[in-house]
Amino acid sequence: MRASEIIRAKRDGGRLRPEEIRFLVDGYAGGAIPDYQLAAFCMAVFFRGMDGEETAALTEAMLRSGQVLDLSDVPGVKVDKHSTGGVGDKVSLALAPIAAACGVVVPMVSGRGLGHTGGTLDKLEAIPGFRVDLPVSRFRELLRRNGACLIGQTAEIAPADKKLYALRDVTATVESIPLIAGSIMSKKLAEGIDGLVLDVKVGRGAFMKRREEAGLLARTLAGIGRAMGKRVTVLLTDMEQPLGLAVGNALEAAEAVELLRGGGPPDLREVTLALCAEMLLLAGVETGGAAARRRVERAVADGSALERFRRIVEDQGGDPRAVDDLARLPRAPVQRDVPATAAGVVQAIDAEAIGLAAMSLGAGRVRVEDRVDPAVGVVLRHKVGEAVERGAPLATLHAARQGGEPVEAVAARVAAAYRLGPDPASPGPLVLERIG
Amino acid sequence: MRASEIIRAKRDGGRLRPEEIRFLVDGYAGGAIPDYQLAAFCMAVFFRGMDGEETAALTEAMLRSGQVLDLSDVPGVKVDKHSTGGVGDKVSLALAPIAAACGVVVPMVSGRGLGHTGGTLDKLEAIPGFRVDLPVSRFRELLRRNGACLIGQTAEIAPADKKLYALRDVTATVESIPLIAGSIMSKKLAEGIDGLVLDVKVGRGAFMKRREEAGLLARTLAGIGRAMGKRVTVLLTDMEQPLGLAVGNALEAAEAVELLRGGGPPDLREVTLALCAEMLLLAGVETGGAAARRRVERAVADGSALERFRRIVEDQGGDPRAVDDLARLPRAPVQRDVPATAAGVVQAIDAEAIGLAAMSLGAGRVRVEDRVDPAVGVVLRHKVGEAVERGAPLATLHAARQGGEPVEAVAARVAAAYRLGPDPASPGPLVLERIG
Repeated sequence: MRASEIIRAKRDGGRLRPEEIRFLVDGYAGGAIPDYQLAAFCMAVFFRGMDGEETAALTEAMLRSGQVLDLSDVPGVKVDKHSTGGVGDKVSLALAPIAAACGVVVPMVSGRGLGHTGGTLDKLEAIPGFRVDLPVSRFRELLRRNGACLIGQTAEIAPADKKLYALRDVTATVESIPLIAGSIMSKKLAEGIDGLVLDVKVGRGAFMKRREEAGLLARTLAGIGRAMGKRVTVLLTDMEQPLGLAVGNALEAAEAVELLRGGGPPDLREVTLALCAEMLLLAGVETGGAAARRRVERAVADGSALERFRRIVEDQGGDPRAVDDLARLPRAPVQRDVPATAAGVVQAIDAEAIGLAAMSLGAGRVRVEDRVDPAVGVVLRHKVGEAVERGAPLATLHAARQGGEPVEAVAARVAAAYRLGPDPASPGPLVLERIG
Repeated sequence: MRASEIIRAKRDGGRLRPEEIRFLVDGYAGGAIPDYQLAAFCMAVFFRGMDGEETAALTEAMLRSGQVLDLSDVPGVKVDKHSTGGVGDKVSLALAPIAAACGVVVPMVSGRGLGHTGGTLDKLEAIPGFRVDLPVSRFRELLRRNGACLIGQTAEIAPADKKLYALRDVTATVESIPLIAGSIMSKKLAEGIDGLVLDVKVGRGAFMKRREEAGLLARTLAGIGRAMGKRVTVLLTDMEQPLGLAVGNALEAAEAVELLRGGGPPDLREVTLALCAEMLLLAGVETGGAAARRRVERAVADGSALERFRRIVEDQGGDPRAVDDLARLPRAPVQRDVPATAAGVVQAIDAEAIGLAAMSLGAGRVRVEDRVDPAVGVVLRHKVGEAVERGAPLATLHAARQGGEPVEAVAARVAAAYRLGPDPASPGPLVLERIG
């Protein structure tokens, strides 16, 4: 087999055999096939796509390039949740303890934020002392103990994907459904899970801006899961406006705790509980959707999910007092309201613009190597459909420094992200589609 | 400017600004932009194409990456001819001395054969002692003296193209009209010419198999020439069956000499004289097509072209006696006829198959670093439209060794390259289109 012939076959619209895809991925991971050939290959895939079997072969080759966790000695059905990323998406922080409190085992390997989207690891680390870099032995132990453990990706997980993703990032080949799907699934399947609930975000703040594109990704992800013998459910959820009110790491951690206390913004609660219920179904904890939903609501209402979160935080080195006293979370020295320049009803809030605003304040990363400030961010005061008076605060910035150019510029961008109008407005449905 | 953004713009069907293309080419040539980004870029260009202005910018950037010969101190109008490559294409060997004998200055920088196509340098080197690696000072001197000099590409000519071509070769991005056109023109325009006649081959033995594709390449080449302020004429010529009868380096050199002596196969003569006449028109030696044609025919008939070739050979270190005594050219020890297995009229001869057969005998290269045997090759005994009896020789192989597997296998392939049938047949027109 020759790499250039495989590239040519894909370029000309051919269907690759699994062994050809394996040859490319293994050769690339091992250094025998150079990056320029993979770059050309990824661009050919961008234009020509891959069918289900090709995508599954790509996923499996990347998965097998590294370690696959074997959690068979941990009792229970292992189910994880993965989101394609959005703004204000702190779902995992509440979802993992809720699902665990309901009897699901949640071996969660998460990522960090980049660009306008946040990352679960950054939000967890906003809790003083919380550690996400646990060794696998400790991960296994805490899964047995708490039913959930949340860590970062190790170097041993799907190294071929890691290498390929870095290459795609600098060759404008990120935006390809089969490559995205293969990347996501190779990492998640390496966790040794039995089932996976996927939250494919769609809208302005999501990676997939258009519904049909998101639907295609969702079906591709589900197809890979099936091909690899895993139970997979995908929900398409709205990411036109940010999820919940808080955007920024400690601010989001606090909002997740509020949800576990039985409060929190209704949209965040709805998305979190819907995803959680799907996890219970995959795990076989409940067999009907309504029963699963009642069970997760009960775990919040009776405090068992909050108690589980407290244990998780403590066992991962975090300060459990922060769960009960949110004032122990890092807090930015400056709060600055962003007033409405006119009265009206909020017609839309550009989630991407809010995400970028939070990033500018220091909550996110422009580059992978950047550090984040856990305290800063944006808290929305109004969401789509709400009426505001002129001069009333649309949002509050949490900043590291008073005044100056950055904060004023961010305030202007947050104001511009709000579209106000005279007519009534209501947000679209939160869950757009279910693929099970 | 960022390379990944430029790749993305092209990927998404955008039109690049000249400075963006220059940024990529200069960065690549200088080592600041890595090969994987160019590989992705070339694949994006394969799918999205480039318009005339983009292609001209690419050509100019590659041209400027190296030395551009300044031949302004050499009197006369400098016009070269370039062919996109075919089988049996020994045109340049006869054309350069004919055009020079008519008063055109021909600074010809040629290439070597690869795959099924031959190269002018290999054919010239079949003449004992002939040197193609002359220093630029000698090239200039011989141009003044003989009106023509034929050398190989120096490392100083369009190094960005050299680097990019090697990359395209291993990333399945060779077959892109703007990239092909830019590569050809950047090298030819570096010769310091005033005008260029292009012979775009079309058919089975050519790089461009389909007429419309060849036409597009021809118009792209002409467009670049115009954009760069050069006089360019393109002829689309037939490469369904090999040009002339001989395929193999010394065999082709001998056939070119026969043409200069007033003989040679009619198709070779027609294509050579047609291209030559175009050179005279571009050089302003004649102003009408018919007069130009008469002039080149006269240069052959009166022996002045042959005499010019003799001088060129001698001045480039070759044995001028070989021009008058073709037996002094290398000759293969074995001649083996390929008989017709049935009677019939030759309907078609697959030029590519004949080229590959000659290559297998040692006349061509599988890889750039391979060496060629100047003596070996295939001589066709019949061409399209000719009737043959069963058992009569279709062709004669000139091989380095008697019998054995290779020669027998090649004989079978040459026989299979001939398609015989009961009906009369005639080859299509030799010159399919003229773009001036």
